[in-house]
Amino acid sequence: MLAATLALTAAAQEQPTAAAPSDSVRADGRAVGTYAIVHEMLKQTKPKYAYRPNMSRRQLRAWQRGVGRAMASLMRFPAPDRSQPAPVCVARQPREGYTLERWELYPQEGIAVPFLVLRPDGLTGPVPAVLCIPGSGRTKEGLAGEPGVAPEFTENYTDPRVCMALDMVREGYVAVAVDNPAAGETADRAEGVRGYDYDLVSRFLLEMGWSWLGYASWIDRQVLDWMKQQPDIRRDRIVVSGFSLGTEPMMVLGAMDSEIYAFVYNDFLCQTQERALVLNRPEGGRRPFPNSIRHLIPDYWRYFNFPDVAAALAPRHIIFTEGGMDRDFRLVRSAYADFGAEERAVFHHYPRFADPAQRIDVERLPEGLDRTTFFRMVNVDPPSHYFKHELVLPWLRRILR
Amino acid sequence: MLAATLALTAAAQEQPTAAAPSDSVRADGRAVGTYAIVHEMLKQTKPKYAYRPNMSRRQLRAWQRGVGRAMASLMRFPAPDRSQPAPVCVARQPREGYTLERWELYPQEGIAVPFLVLRPDGLTGPVPAVLCIPGSGRTKEGLAGEPGVAPEFTENYTDPRVCMALDMVREGYVAVAVDNPAAGETADRAEGVRGYDYDLVSRFLLEMGWSWLGYASWIDRQVLDWMKQQPDIRRDRIVVSGFSLGTEPMMVLGAMDSEIYAFVYNDFLCQTQERALVLNRPEGGRRPFPNSIRHLIPDYWRYFNFPDVAAALAPRHIIFTEGGMDRDFRLVRSAYADFGAEERAVFHHYPRFADPAQRIDVERLPEGLDRTTFFRMVNVDPPSHYFKHELVLPWLRRILR
Repeated sequence: MLAATLALTAAAQEQPTAAAPSDSVRADGRAVGTYAIVHEMLKQTKPKYAYRPNMSRRQLRAWQRGVGRAMASLMRFPAPDRSQPAPVCVARQPREGYTLERWELYPQEGIAVPFLVLRPDGLTGPVPAVLCIPGSGRTKEGLAGEPGVAPEFTENYTDPRVCMALDMVREGYVAVAVDNPAAGETADRAEGVRGYDYDLVSRFLLEMGWSWLGYASWIDRQVLDWMKQQPDIRRDRIVVSGFSLGTEPMMVLGAMDSEIYAFVYNDFLCQTQERALVLNRPEGGRRPFPNSIRHLIPDYWRYFNFPDVAAALAPRHIIFTEGGMDRDFRLVRSAYADFGAEERAVFHHYPRFADPAQRIDVERLPEGLDRTTFFRMVNVDPPSHYFKHELVLPWLRRILR
Repeated sequence: MLAATLALTAAAQEQPTAAAPSDSVRADGRAVGTYAIVHEMLKQTKPKYAYRPNMSRRQLRAWQRGVGRAMASLMRFPAPDRSQPAPVCVARQPREGYTLERWELYPQEGIAVPFLVLRPDGLTGPVPAVLCIPGSGRTKEGLAGEPGVAPEFTENYTDPRVCMALDMVREGYVAVAVDNPAAGETADRAEGVRGYDYDLVSRFLLEMGWSWLGYASWIDRQVLDWMKQQPDIRRDRIVVSGFSLGTEPMMVLGAMDSEIYAFVYNDFLCQTQERALVLNRPEGGRRPFPNSIRHLIPDYWRYFNFPDVAAALAPRHIIFTEGGMDRDFRLVRSAYADFGAEERAVFHHYPRFADPAQRIDVERLPEGLDRTTFFRMVNVDPPSHYFKHELVLPWLRRILR
């Protein structure tokens, strides 16, 4: 198997000769093709707040502050509107062992943001709480173990690999579940529209100088701030748990708010700048771009990549549940070691790649990859992408006991 | 026919009830759906440098300076790299009545930008010159009346509705033709890639905080600056002529450089912010967005719309060849009148809509339009979209005589 792995690596490393943009670079070292030019520009973009090993304690703190400030600047949150009413509980229903509450917050005139609170029965004092952020195509109702707000939005909501918030309230924590913008209850339900169109709202936001992630994090930050004020919640034991797309606002909240106690990173850890550079093997007449504009945050890579942001969460507890490159895990581990908190970052690979002998471990990915080869090279097993309750819940018990 | 037109208008105005985002606004005036929210945000975005009638001369000048400064800030040109070599003529070929020259400019290390110069034979002194910028899917070779750099890039290059630069040199002007980034010679010609992928390079640029238009205009500005230094060119008689997509860099150059003598706007004049708001009738399960990310310039609408930018070119000569809304023409005409230069802005509608009785003339477009209805309401006849040489050449003769 290792031999097969190495052969695949070699094949992947040979691929770029066919399709790398450097084809269009001339003898004088200049490129004429715009793709080759912008590809090289991106390659030369060195994030200002990339994690560096061997920083002094003072440098580490300055770096973390830099990450937080840059994140705040990228996210462009509007100024808080103090004239708006406080969040309101609009419905309350008993469930087995807990109460399901439906809340709304009012961040600005003209906007209502619904969220769900699952509150354990019989609380006698504040308990830890988990802010649950869903993945793409998923909803707060799915997280809460409830049917969707419309039949077509109903997920496999009794599956513990889906119902993250229900898992949490069963553990005795207050669980709070939000929608990602454009999904579930926040979807466009006009006649003739099907599904969740994240990219259309992203385009509107980008035109206005904002971004999907900026908007999503702006909402989530207000839910988090509300959580901190709840008498049933231990303000010093708030966990933010992101599944898939939800890891992005999770990182934003973490970088901007040092009060959060712990983080669940339930996706593979991805160096997205590198991915944009290497996942470029033409298919069907075009080179792919790895993802849609819901992930586009102009200037993000001028400051950091996901592993840098995750590293900057040190020394707070974090669990990674779906692997990625060992290289990126080493980076995060190194940051935690700098803080003397190596044991506070817990790393799991996909089951298929749990054995190091099954993993590809390179320092740099070759260009010219297709999606399948890319996933293989970064140790991702797409069919096994789900909320890893079997890892997260025991870990939470340990860090929250 | 007018009756038919009015019926169509009425139909268009009825459409939105089916699909306008306001469907999702509640009794308390708050929206929950993200599309409705961002749609309203965009609707409330009032461009800072929108043209206003009845400005004093001083206010007009301040407004124009504001447009120029905002445009420069949006376009994010890199600082000039003085260490780079000057443009070089790399090839020269005789043609009937003119010489075709191939030039390269070197804006930065690692980049070569080819452009074509068509120089009339027998010049005895400087003459007017025209910078020709092509439309989407088109090339500098097509503009120059030459076959493409590869057989699959060859256009109908002897058609005067295509070969804008050839038309110009035949008039006795020095004609300069550029490629749009990602097209023609600047296309990605790796194995497996077909056609011109503007959107992929746009995504790279947007990730880096830049934009397709910023990059394109950065190149075009350097070609323009080169033109100003040519002994064969009358620096005070430089025209910038944009076809279709090429009108966008044309407007950027015009807003940022007051030395340009005249402008050819060969497309319909479009209020793109309004278009994004109203061209939103669901089709195939999704609402459309009117165009791709090559047109995305974050924050643009915070400052102006195309009619405002065109208006800010006053009192310099401009010709509009393919109509649009009378409302938008009135806006530009009003700005020219403010400068006492009404005759310097020339307005043509599509032949099909030349007769005012055939045109729809409204002050505001209704929401819920599909593409076909939108084009009809803004008086656009897509099959007749081409370089209107029959209008442009006589007009140039007049203003350049």
